[in-house]
Amino acid sequence: MIRILGIDPGLRRTGWGAIAVDGSRLSFLGCGCVESDGALSLAERLRQLHDGLARVLAEAAPDEVAVEETFVNKDAQATLKLGHARAVALLVPALRGLSVSEYAANQIKKTVVGVGHAEKAQIAAMIRVLLPLSNARTPDAADALAVAITHAHHRRARALSNSLLARVAP
Amino acid sequence: MIRILGIDPGLRRTGWGAIAVDGSRLSFLGCGCVESDGALSLAERLRQLHDGLARVLAEAAPDEVAVEETFVNKDAQATLKLGHARAVALLVPALRGLSVSEYAANQIKKTVVGVGHAEKAQIAAMIRVLLPLSNARTPDAADALAVAITHAHHRRARALSNSLLARVAP
Repeated sequence: MIRILGIDPGLRRTGWGAIAVDGSRLSFLGCGCVESDGALSLAERLRQLHDGLARVLAEAAPDEVAVEETFVNKDAQATLKLGHARAVALLVPALRGLSVSEYAANQIKKTVVGVGHAEKAQIAAMIRVLLPLSNARTPDAADALAVAITHAHHRRARALSNSLLARVAP
Repeated sequence: MIRILGIDPGLRRTGWGAIAVDGSRLSFLGCGCVESDGALSLAERLRQLHDGLARVLAEAAPDEVAVEETFVNKDAQATLKLGHARAVALLVPALRGLSVSEYAANQIKKTVVGVGHAEKAQIAAMIRVLLPLSNARTPDAADALAVAITHAHHRRARALSNSLLARVAP
């Protein structure tokens, strides 16, 4: 059994979701949001995200971490803000020596819903099916659980193909 | 006397420069670069920048920190990379409870060289005049010293205008 923490970074609100994976069985551990205060300086806001994520990591005690890749859009200022939040989301687990995987938004949607252009509401509905005990109250927390599920799926697919390769070419 | 650390963030190479300020007198304390290994994952690279900057802060022991503001250009991927490095440059001093000021690139050029569109070589030449003992070997280290000088100038200007205001309206 391994524990996976998914993170959906955002400067105002960073979602997190923790699951346990045992073979193909997924179970819900917890989810929530870490927020920063828009009235503070950027440095202080990044510190709030750092401190919040450090607490989440200490409590969720994940074995592996997965972070949603930043969507680069036309609004350069928004891209930059997201980049700041995402750096903290990557840094905090790396400081604890944890492996951090990254998944693009459409890869996450495709894994969880089956199509790359799913709406937020479809993701939330699918999370309720895959993790019946989950209680994600915000889209950010549901998205973070989707990142964790995506990592669980891809690490299992990698492990299966590795074991097949080992049998074919011992 | 106060000690100021200037930081010029970059994902591959983040420059730093430390100066001491006593009234209008500036003196050179040290400068250099913190590098990240392009062959590693983004999370690992951000950890290298974090660890390097943490060492610099421990040795330079600044009272205040200044960071160059990110220039948002048309290359969204480059903007995003710079945003990641800059988040670490803002976060590391904030984690130590230090105040972090931000200055735009043209504000730094205007303060140090006198015009907002100065070339890198002009900045390096001016740094040698203002800090004769400095030994900046890379443009990043020279730029970081320019950020520190800009902060020294602006904090002094702010202090002077505050004391004038206090005399006018006691």
